Amino acid sequence: MMANITDYMHELGINARQAAQALVKATTAQKNKALQCIAGQLADAKETIQQANQQDLINGKKNGLSSALLDRLELTDARLEGMITGVKQVIALADPVGAIRDLKYTSSGLQIGKMRTPIGVIGMIYESRPNVTIDAAALCLKSGNAIILRGGSEAIHSNKAIAACIQQGLQQANLPAHCVQLVNTTDRQAVDLLITMPEYVDVIIPRGGKSLIQRISEHAKVPVIKHLDGVCHIYVDQYADLAKACKVAVNAKCYRYGICGAMETLLVDQAVAEKFLPIVAQQFIEKGVELRGCERTLSYLPTINKATEEDWFTEYLAAILAVRVVDNIEQAISHINYYGSHHTDSIITENTESVRRFLAEVDSSSVMHNTPTCFADGFEYGLGAEIGISTDKLHVRGPVGLEGLTTEKYIVLGDGQTRG
Amino acid sequence: MMANITDYMHELGINARQAAQALVKATTAQKNKALQCIAGQLADAKETIQQANQQDLINGKKNGLSSALLDRLELTDARLEGMITGVKQVIALADPVGAIRDLKYTSSGLQIGKMRTPIGVIGMIYESRPNVTIDAAALCLKSGNAIILRGGSEAIHSNKAIAACIQQGLQQANLPAHCVQLVNTTDRQAVDLLITMPEYVDVIIPRGGKSLIQRISEHAKVPVIKHLDGVCHIYVDQYADLAKACKVAVNAKCYRYGICGAMETLLVDQAVAEKFLPIVAQQFIEKGVELRGCERTLSYLPTINKATEEDWFTEYLAAILAVRVVDNIEQAISHINYYGSHHTDSIITENTESVRRFLAEVDSSSVMHNTPTCFADGFEYGLGAEIGISTDKLHVRGPVGLEGLTTEKYIVLGDGQTRG
Repeated sequence: MMANITDYMHELGINARQAAQALVKATTAQKNKALQCIAGQLADAKETIQQANQQDLINGKKNGLSSALLDRLELTDARLEGMITGVKQVIALADPVGAIRDLKYTSSGLQIGKMRTPIGVIGMIYESRPNVTIDAAALCLKSGNAIILRGGSEAIHSNKAIAACIQQGLQQANLPAHCVQLVNTTDRQAVDLLITMPEYVDVIIPRGGKSLIQRISEHAKVPVIKHLDGVCHIYVDQYADLAKACKVAVNAKCYRYGICGAMETLLVDQAVAEKFLPIVAQQFIEKGVELRGCERTLSYLPTINKATEEDWFTEYLAAILAVRVVDNIEQAISHINYYGSHHTDSIITENTESVRRFLAEVDSSSVMHNTPTCFADGFEYGLGAEIGISTDKLHVRGPVGLEGLTTEKYIVLGDGQTRG
Repeated sequence: MMANITDYMHELGINARQAAQALVKATTAQKNKALQCIAGQLADAKETIQQANQQDLINGKKNGLSSALLDRLELTDARLEGMITGVKQVIALADPVGAIRDLKYTSSGLQIGKMRTPIGVIGMIYESRPNVTIDAAALCLKSGNAIILRGGSEAIHSNKAIAACIQQGLQQANLPAHCVQLVNTTDRQAVDLLITMPEYVDVIIPRGGKSLIQRISEHAKVPVIKHLDGVCHIYVDQYADLAKACKVAVNAKCYRYGICGAMETLLVDQAVAEKFLPIVAQQFIEKGVELRGCERTLSYLPTINKATEEDWFTEYLAAILAVRVVDNIEQAISHINYYGSHHTDSIITENTESVRRFLAEVDSSSVMHNTPTCFADGFEYGLGAEIGISTDKLHVRGPVGLEGLTTEKYIVLGDGQTRG
C-alpha cells in the first residue's frame, strides 16, 4: 500500500508539472473558455453532484459529524448556483499573467522590468466545504497554475463529482485535464507526500483548523502560505468619533462571530473610556456578547468578568469580547503587535497623526482606519475571490487572490550590449 | 556551553525584535543619517579594520586557506573605499518603506491599497568576503529591517571591526545599536539556532556554496531566500543576427567565469548551426575555453570533446562551455526549463514572435533578449546594490535589493462603513 500511494502521488506530481507547462502557454481567451466550459459542466451535472453530496451527508451523519459541519458540507441549490456564479466572476477578472511593470532603461542601455508569471503547481489542502474545490480550481486556472486538491474525507464524493466536471470542462477547451487534479484517496499519507515533493509542488496552501496548518508547516519541505488565526483588534483612539466607534465596534464583532476577521479584543483609550465603555457595553450585552475586561475596564463596567492574560491571546470565534483600557496609542500598538496574530486591526479616530502612526506601526496583514475588521475578505477587497488569507509575511499577506497566486521574473531587453 | 550559546542567540533575537520596532518608526532622514554616520565611522577606523583584517589573513595562511580565498578576504585600501562608497550609494536610493500602491475605492466605499513595510528581522549567513557585512547591513537598515549577521569564521576579526563601526554609527544617529548585530562566536551551533528561531527571525538569507545553502534550507524553520546555482543558457535562434550572437555569447561566458550569471550552455538552432558554430568556436578556443558538444555539434566541430548528460546540468564556473544544437525554439525552451537552474537565460533573435515565446515560457528569474547573461546583477539592474540573487519562486526572484527586503500589507481606509 505504501508503495502504491507514493507512486500515485508522484504520478499526480508529474501530471501537474506537465499541465503547468501547457498552462504557461495558454492565452487568456483559452483559460476563460475553459472556465466557461467548467461552469457549463457544473450546471449540467447538478443532479449528479447533489447525489454525490447526499452520500457524503449520509456518511457524515453515520460518522457523527456535528450539525454545523453537516451544514457546511451540504450543497443546496443556492450553493451550487453560487459555485457557478463564482466561476463566472473569475472569468471577468483581469488575467495577471504577463503584466509587465517598471520597464526602464538602465545606464547600460538595457530595458529592465518585471513580468508576472504563474507560480507553477499549487497544492491545496482543505477541510469540509466542497465549494473550495471549485473556487481554488478556478483561481489557479485563471492565474495559470496547475493545482492538486486534497479535500476532506467527509466531502470526498462531492469533491470527486465537482472535479469530474472541472476536468471535462478543461478537455472541452483543449487544455489538459491534469491542470486540476483531485487526490482520490482519503489516506492521510497523501498529505504527507504532497507537502514533501518540492520537485512537483511549488507552494502549499492549507485551509482549515490551526492544528492542521501547524502540522503542515512543521513537516512541509515546500513553502506554505499559512492562514492562521485572526486575533483582531479595534482601538478607539482619544480622538475617535464615539458614535462611529460604537457602530464600527459592534459590526466588527457581531457581523459574524465565526470569521477570522471578527474583532476579538477592543482597546479603548483611557481619555474616552469613561464615556465610551458604558454605551458600547450596553449594545454588546443586548446582543448577548460576553465581555471580559481589564481592571480599568471593570472600574467602568463593574458587572462584567475579569479578563486573564490568556484572553488577550485568544481567538474566540464566539460571542465573547475582551476589553482593555490603554494609556495611549503607543500602548495600543504595543498590545496589538504583542498579543495579536498580525491578521487585521483597525483604529477609530478623526486625527490624521494617529492614522499615520497606526498604519505604519501595526504589523498586520491588514491595517484599517474607521473600518470594522470583518471587512477583511478577498471579495470585499475587490479581488473577486480569495483562495485564503495569508498571515505570513513573505510573498503575500492578507486575502490571496489572483496576484498572490503569481510571481514575477525580471525581463531584460537589449540589442547586443556587452558587459565589462 | 550549549546553554550559553542558546541563551546568547535568544538574546540577539530579542534585541533584534526590539530594534526592528524602533526601525519601523524611523524616518527616511534618520536612516540616511545613520548610514552617513556609519560611512564616517568606517573612514575613521580604516587602520583598526585593516589591523583586524591582518589577523584574519595571518590565521588564514596558518590554516592553509587557498590564495583565492585569502584574496577574497583581504581588505585593501581600494576595497575599504568601495565599502564606504557602497554605503553612500544606499543613502541615495529611494526608501521603499511606506510606499502605497493601487489605493482604490471599492463598492462599499472603502479605499483599499497596499503599503510597503519592512519584513522585520533578517538573518544573514555568509562566507569569506567581509564586505558583505557592510553591504547587507546598509541594505537592511535602509529597508527598515534589523539584521543578525553570521559571517565566516575566517573573517571574524574583520567582521567584528566593521560591525563595531556600524553600531557606533547607529548610536550616533540615535538608532539602537542592535539594529545590526554580528554573531560574535564561530561556534557552528549559532547557525543551527539562527535558522530555527521563527519567533525572532523572519527570513534567512544564506550566501555561500551550494552545500551550505542546501543544509540551511533542509533544517530551517524560518523561510529562506535561496541563491542556488546559475546554469545559464544562451539560445541562438534561427532568426538571430549571428554577429550579435557571437559577441553576446563570448561576453556571457568570458566576462568572468566565476559569476553565477556566466553562460554554461550554448544552444544553437539547427538552422544556423553550420554557419554559426565554426565562427563562435574559434573565438572561444582562442580565449582558452574548452567546448563540449552534442553529436550534432561535433559534426560541425569534430575536434571538440563530447558532452555527457551530466554536462547539461553543470555549473562549471570555469573556462568550459557545453554546446548543443537544437531543432527549434520549442526544444530550446524545454532544454532550459529541464536542465537549467531557473537563474538567467537569454535568446538571441531579431524575431518578435521568438522573443514573446521565450520571455513567457522560460521559467527563470531573469529572461533576456539579445543580452549576455552576465548582466544578471543587482547593480546592473539599477537596484543600487544587491543582498543576493534569489533562485526561489516565492516572494522575490532574481537580484534582491531594497524592495525584496520589504513586504506589503493592505491598508483599508473608511469612514464608519459597516458590513452586512
